[in-house]
Amino acid sequence: MKTKESLLRLLNDNLNKLSFDKKPKELYDPMAYALTMGGKRIRPLLTLMSCEVFGGNISKALPSALALEVFHNFTLVHDDIMDIAPLRRGKETVYKKWNTNIGILAGDAMLAKAFEIITESDEEIIKPLTRLLSKVAIEVCEGQQLDMNFEHTEHITIPEYLEMIRLKTAVLVGSSLMAGAIVAGASKKDTQEIYLFGENLGMAFQMKDDILDVFGDEKKFGKKKGGDIITKKKTYLYLKAHELAKDKTLNSLIYYFANSTFDNETKVKVISDIYEKVGVKKHAEKQMDVFYNKSMSHLSKINVPESNKKNLVDIAEQLLVREF
Amino acid sequence: MKTKESLLRLLNDNLNKLSFDKKPKELYDPMAYALTMGGKRIRPLLTLMSCEVFGGNISKALPSALALEVFHNFTLVHDDIMDIAPLRRGKETVYKKWNTNIGILAGDAMLAKAFEIITESDEEIIKPLTRLLSKVAIEVCEGQQLDMNFEHTEHITIPEYLEMIRLKTAVLVGSSLMAGAIVAGASKKDTQEIYLFGENLGMAFQMKDDILDVFGDEKKFGKKKGGDIITKKKTYLYLKAHELAKDKTLNSLIYYFANSTFDNETKVKVISDIYEKVGVKKHAEKQMDVFYNKSMSHLSKINVPESNKKNLVDIAEQLLVREF
Repeated sequence: MKTKESLLRLLNDNLNKLSFDKKPKELYDPMAYALTMGGKRIRPLLTLMSCEVFGGNISKALPSALALEVFHNFTLVHDDIMDIAPLRRGKETVYKKWNTNIGILAGDAMLAKAFEIITESDEEIIKPLTRLLSKVAIEVCEGQQLDMNFEHTEHITIPEYLEMIRLKTAVLVGSSLMAGAIVAGASKKDTQEIYLFGENLGMAFQMKDDILDVFGDEKKFGKKKGGDIITKKKTYLYLKAHELAKDKTLNSLIYYFANSTFDNETKVKVISDIYEKVGVKKHAEKQMDVFYNKSMSHLSKINVPESNKKNLVDIAEQLLVREF
Repeated sequence: MKTKESLLRLLNDNLNKLSFDKKPKELYDPMAYALTMGGKRIRPLLTLMSCEVFGGNISKALPSALALEVFHNFTLVHDDIMDIAPLRRGKETVYKKWNTNIGILAGDAMLAKAFEIITESDEEIIKPLTRLLSKVAIEVCEGQQLDMNFEHTEHITIPEYLEMIRLKTAVLVGSSLMAGAIVAGASKKDTQEIYLFGENLGMAFQMKDDILDVFGDEKKFGKKKGGDIITKKKTYLYLKAHELAKDKTLNSLIYYFANSTFDNETKVKVISDIYEKVGVKKHAEKQMDVFYNKSMSHLSKINVPESNKKNLVDIAEQLLVREF
């Protein structure tokens, strides 16, 4: 079994081989930039690891892994336009560095490129892999649309929120693992179990992300603290705080969250303080653990020697303490 | 050989079967709207006709045909955002009817959907068809980027312009025909010839489109007259007029074309008058004929009975007189 580091090297070497030294450079430069902004390569790493879990040949999983990474970065390029996000991983976002039209178009070309890369897989798995990628692509769009809807929706329940993040984030984690299983020729049941391991891991990961947005270290996280508050994203933290807060605290939460007249810093400070006060962090962490435990339960059902699962157990732990 | 009308019925019936009655409706309604704005279904029609040229089973070409139509409409949805175009085929564009974010996202989902539909083809042709769709998708993005670059480029040559429209428009016409040939199992040479028939037909069609934008009937055309002039698109007409105009006429052309202080009506009137004066229409029509003759030459090289080509000869003629 290869180490995480050697798999990451393999991935980055092959991502660098994707040729973006083409014309028009106004299209290809942003694509190359988006792919080298310092992503953690979590999804393609999971594809390769999943392939190894089932004893597959990782070189045959490379097209899927690369395609999923290109796809993931496409979603970031377009999401940043929609969310008007100036920074990602501490760097200017594509639309901010160039312009919105270039962001739209570079993203489109990346989505098409992801499907092109998939066709470099072995002939007999191109169909299921293309179906997997198109399915997850559509689901991610559904999730993003729900996310945008929620900005203008007064009352969102926690289950509605969880379904949104499932579509927007978790299905891609699940699908990344599923791709590796397909390449390795895993059984239908095991393929489904590793998908569910990933989907639940993705849910746990998103809970962590929500928590870090408010309680994380700005430098380490590479994002402006409280970005979700500034952009009025009704995350788990907000929804849970809304549930827990009473009287004046609840009024303050609603008032400051919806109001745009305060400067961002004040707003983040006031809302964060309310989150602290009502103790929302421990609830979010508990919810994260629920998903983490579910994911581990699905992993345990996969019919391969436990030693094969070590990489996945390790990466799941690392993801949730956000070591990388 | 089926009539154009019966093929159109088949296409529209199957397009209507694509299920967009899903949630979130803010994603699926715009997708359905974009696909039912009254497109002429030229590209999928060419796919089915091409399949018939080579004696293929058109039901097996349906996934490609539908995918190409969905893909084409995706490009329109995103292009309309980038071109800030309020109307298409006489109706509000998607981003105008909803908003830009919804336009971006519905387009993304349509692009993914096109690849999903391709996978409904027979297993053994999914690879070449997916490669074809991803290749053309990337080329169309290149063409759109060149188009946007040209807005801010002082000097564009006519060959540069022709390369841009080849990528933005013609390759998709060629690829639509190529898809039908792939489904029918045509020879490599014939597949290439029908692609080139289509690419040149697409070029001729775009020349016609440029001409109609200025000299066409607004009601019949369903677009605001002079849209290319208003949006400062340096079309063949403009570039040729720039080449032909002298002294005061040239100065007027440059001055009025670049200036944004005049109202649109005045601008369109002045520029159209210059186009008339320097006789740019007949040059454009001559260039259109060059492409049309090239396309017919490639069609003639295809090794099937001439009677098989009748539908394509007819549609090529109809497209260029813009009967439908």
